[in-house]
Amino acid sequence: MVHRPVLGLDADDTLWENQAHFDTAQGAFRQLLSPWATGEQVDASLLSLERTNIGRYGYGVKSFTLSCVEAAINLTEGTIEAHQISQILSTGQALIDHPVELLPTVADTLHLLGESHRLMLITKGDPTDQHRKILNSGIVDHFWAVEVVREKDPHTYGALLQQHRVEVDQFTMVGNSVPSDVLPVISLGAQAVHIPHHTTWGHEHADDASLVGVDFPVLDSFSELPALLAGRFLA
Amino acid sequence: MVHRPVLGLDADDTLWENQAHFDTAQGAFRQLLSPWATGEQVDASLLSLERTNIGRYGYGVKSFTLSCVEAAINLTEGTIEAHQISQILSTGQALIDHPVELLPTVADTLHLLGESHRLMLITKGDPTDQHRKILNSGIVDHFWAVEVVREKDPHTYGALLQQHRVEVDQFTMVGNSVPSDVLPVISLGAQAVHIPHHTTWGHEHADDASLVGVDFPVLDSFSELPALLAGRFLA
Repeated sequence: MVHRPVLGLDADDTLWENQAHFDTAQGAFRQLLSPWATGEQVDASLLSLERTNIGRYGYGVKSFTLSCVEAAINLTEGTIEAHQISQILSTGQALIDHPVELLPTVADTLHLLGESHRLMLITKGDPTDQHRKILNSGIVDHFWAVEVVREKDPHTYGALLQQHRVEVDQFTMVGNSVPSDVLPVISLGAQAVHIPHHTTWGHEHADDASLVGVDFPVLDSFSELPALLAGRFLA
Repeated sequence: MVHRPVLGLDADDTLWENQAHFDTAQGAFRQLLSPWATGEQVDASLLSLERTNIGRYGYGVKSFTLSCVEAAINLTEGTIEAHQISQILSTGQALIDHPVELLPTVADTLHLLGESHRLMLITKGDPTDQHRKILNSGIVDHFWAVEVVREKDPHTYGALLQQHRVEVDQFTMVGNSVPSDVLPVISLGAQAVHIPHHTTWGHEHADDASLVGVDFPVLDSFSELPALLAGRFLA
């Protein structure tokens, strides 16, 4: 029996909109703090706290919300009022309750991809957030496997391939993040495809040094994926 | 090749202290709000909010902290000050940073259990919290497998056994929670052992109706486990 090759798909900002919703929430946060600090000060304070707290809190909306509350108290030197902190909590809850918005062409393209590949959704982040989005996405039936992982590093990808009995040369990963979706996969000897998104979290930018000597296809749109895979790996 | 049977072990309040730390944090929270509300009012408001938020936030310290902030603003009708909310955040961070305290006899008993069984740590909760505790516990080398799951229901246990190729009659689960560690496992036809802890979260109490006609061993201490298993399942 010949198995179809496996296509790993990132979710946030590859299959559905994510960072834009965080950006909107962060815009509301800047607005709330505008009597005390400039937008740049708010962004810098928040990113610094998010980096400090990531070991404690991990990724996701709860982590973002807690860091916003902490940043707000710091930036206002404790003069922010409780009803304003309440607005921060509400913004976080609205982020959680926001419906999943698939990116353009994703639903139709998944249908095509599923004919040639076994599809594995591979996403990191807060599992409560991620599983809720997966359930609400309406596309879960396209997937042969769904994996919410803690970090997207070579060790994690290697363990996933072993667990699902997938050979390295039968695996291609697709996503919007070079450090998370592309580089660790290429380092294992598998293939990766980069589909940049219009907005990317500051924490997820690759440094230039890590890109030296590494080559991978970059697509403008998810809809270009079937043609690329047909030409590159199935010809 | 004959595989040793598999012993599933819950972690929080089975291997290490957990709820007592939350109770201490909640005591500090009651104290903070004592100018506005009685301890009973604070507890009731917090439990109600935790139940409302569990679908959004899941389990764990971040969820607890966010619900505490929301409860504090509600109970004080917005009159709590930012520096007091800051104390709530600090209490949550101290909970996260608290060293893991193994329960008495756990380290020695795990050594014995590992001679007769393959040990599988099965815990639910915030994966960031859980993996940090597992890494810091000093006992991870005793385990054949470590699984952080979203819910401890029959479906989850069944999927774990299938994934690890363990027959139902070769599996015994041990934990302090009847609804999470005992009943779903017995419903699959596997064995379960209850080791009550001195303190249990309000959300984790079994209702009496679910216990009718169900029989399982109850131990006073983790140290009694090897003798029970030797008599019951290996004789």
